[in-house]
Amino acid sequence: MNHKYILLMAALLAQFGWAQSVVEDFKPSSVNQPGKQYPQVNSEGRVRVSIPAPEAHKVQLDIGGVKYDLRKDEKGVWTGESAPQVEGFHYYQLNIDGASVPDPGSLYFYGASRWGSAIEIPASDQDIYAIKDVPHGLVSQKTYFSKVTNSWRRCFVYTLAEYDKNTTKRYPVLYLQHGSGEDETGWPTQGKANLILDNLIAAGKAVPMIIVMDNGYAVKASQAAPGRGAFPFEDVLIGEIIPMIDASFRTLSDRDHRAMAGLSMGANQTITITMNNLDKFSYIAGFSGTSNYPRTDVIDPATFMGGKFMDGAALNKKIKLFWLGLGTEEPAPFPGSVKAFRNMLEKQGVKYTYYESKGTAHEWLTWRRDLHQFASLIFK
Amino acid sequence: MNHKYILLMAALLAQFGWAQSVVEDFKPSSVNQPGKQYPQVNSEGRVRVSIPAPEAHKVQLDIGGVKYDLRKDEKGVWTGESAPQVEGFHYYQLNIDGASVPDPGSLYFYGASRWGSAIEIPASDQDIYAIKDVPHGLVSQKTYFSKVTNSWRRCFVYTLAEYDKNTTKRYPVLYLQHGSGEDETGWPTQGKANLILDNLIAAGKAVPMIIVMDNGYAVKASQAAPGRGAFPFEDVLIGEIIPMIDASFRTLSDRDHRAMAGLSMGANQTITITMNNLDKFSYIAGFSGTSNYPRTDVIDPATFMGGKFMDGAALNKKIKLFWLGLGTEEPAPFPGSVKAFRNMLEKQGVKYTYYESKGTAHEWLTWRRDLHQFASLIFK
Repeated sequence: MNHKYILLMAALLAQFGWAQSVVEDFKPSSVNQPGKQYPQVNSEGRVRVSIPAPEAHKVQLDIGGVKYDLRKDEKGVWTGESAPQVEGFHYYQLNIDGASVPDPGSLYFYGASRWGSAIEIPASDQDIYAIKDVPHGLVSQKTYFSKVTNSWRRCFVYTLAEYDKNTTKRYPVLYLQHGSGEDETGWPTQGKANLILDNLIAAGKAVPMIIVMDNGYAVKASQAAPGRGAFPFEDVLIGEIIPMIDASFRTLSDRDHRAMAGLSMGANQTITITMNNLDKFSYIAGFSGTSNYPRTDVIDPATFMGGKFMDGAALNKKIKLFWLGLGTEEPAPFPGSVKAFRNMLEKQGVKYTYYESKGTAHEWLTWRRDLHQFASLIFK
Repeated sequence: MNHKYILLMAALLAQFGWAQSVVEDFKPSSVNQPGKQYPQVNSEGRVRVSIPAPEAHKVQLDIGGVKYDLRKDEKGVWTGESAPQVEGFHYYQLNIDGASVPDPGSLYFYGASRWGSAIEIPASDQDIYAIKDVPHGLVSQKTYFSKVTNSWRRCFVYTLAEYDKNTTKRYPVLYLQHGSGEDETGWPTQGKANLILDNLIAAGKAVPMIIVMDNGYAVKASQAAPGRGAFPFEDVLIGEIIPMIDASFRTLSDRDHRAMAGLSMGANQTITITMNNLDKFSYIAGFSGTSNYPRTDVIDPATFMGGKFMDGAALNKKIKLFWLGLGTEEPAPFPGSVKAFRNMLEKQGVKYTYYESKGTAHEWLTWRRDLHQFASLIFK
């Protein structure tokens, strides 16, 4: 019986109120608010929440698409546990008499199109993004006005530790995008991009680089709502963000020193934007996503993206690294969609590197691992 | 009848469910989550919240120390309004059948020792912190290890817009502290320190400067809990933060080019730390707080702070600016405590500047105005 079925059965048991045997080694989550004892996580990966709600008649923990009923004690405090969750970072919320609200015990993160609660199930390889006694880079918030969207926008820029010491040296740049329902805070916060790079650079495993993390949503002044795909973010990135970054930071601004990567929706955007602008990028990565999303059927290279993948040999000369990653526990349509894209690349003879994150779902542990892998390969 | 009594009466009326005449010109708050319609504010400064909670039997808005009952409609959505709030920034929460939780519609801020909801009541002078078409500085997150606390800590550093253009010039530094129950995110987020300085510097009203915003709470490795006063933050600031900032940024590192300011608890810390280290600071500001807090009785300069205010003439030679600010609507003990401190300064002949923020309480609009005033006077 595989992991998914165990999770499903545990969830069903919880739904019907059947007793679960729970290992009593819960500890406060690493992403709790200062001084807060709940939420907690145990060695099985179960999440335990607790909240005083003396007048409520039903309180639930809503995580991983499943709602778990909590139990009320004599003091009016509601407590309960989820089924075991896979390791990594999971958004969740509480439901109090029908109101969906953040847990007052957790820190808040932007995901699922809201600021809300999340929890870390400790990962076996959390060392790659642990804070260590190594030189730390800065994460800077840059405010700029976009003429494309006619609005003020914000990006975060990681500058490696030596950037302010070595004031004449120039560095390559990775443009790194979040997924659907997320924003520019994703990579520098739950993505831990700065810590991953601090550790890689300190260990000599990655070339010192700048990382730019912007908001993939963009609405043209004339549009009603943001598009899901690359446009008009492509116009903002190519026409505004890259020139601004090259003017504001000591970058190496040729295509040999510029990479782009993104997760899920950001992977789709990355592949579309870089293939439209191969004069500007030579390293490309899609984390848990490709430009055929959500389709899983066979891709016809003659028509797909205007035929941009027709000439594999020419692409192999231009692209220094085409990199794809996927977690083994990701839901449909990601596995099928990425596989169809890989099949197309192989049919066209486009060289690419494929990385599989063991035991992780469509969430940030997958993407932290992806960044760790990809960043160690580029600009070399 | 003054403003406080009007607020009190409105609150009492709301508590007893009496009908209030509410002006129906509510608009979504400027600090709502993307796309969220609630909370809203009207021209009277009333806050209207709305949340679906179909199975709840009592939902309240908790703001300014008063709980307002919401009304349930036929769809199970609860809606209601507060009494008029004074202009500025106010923390609040919802209470759902006894559970105190953040409002899922608002952005979250750290205050009152929690990440929670807040609302902006538009201020008459919001132009001083509006985002404008002027050069914008960076706000950078700096991670460092403290031997005093044996822990990783974080500060935010504002570097003015020209900092990365003018790569040999050095700048003066303002160390700027938050209040009790807040942290290093206060000034760069709800405090809008970066926008206030961007605007002042662009208008030629402030000397270009660096601002360092750290966490005023510090626990020595051997201590059980953080102290409220200056120690051991004084050890962290003097022994670790200032040397690190001077080593990492292009600072002017003599006392003539170093200022410290803080609000409430941070004001208390500022006065204590600067008076203990007059060889390191020449500009000092207390926003809504002084080192005799919470006492309001007459200060004996012979014993207060070890007699540091005894020789007014000597202090006037050393201190280039001693600056105090207070909002006219602040609660006890702040007015009495600050007044007792001012009386002591006057008795000792210590020169100081006093600024009164009209119509504002013990909250961030007062402190934004304080920073706007103080920053325009220093390093000149």
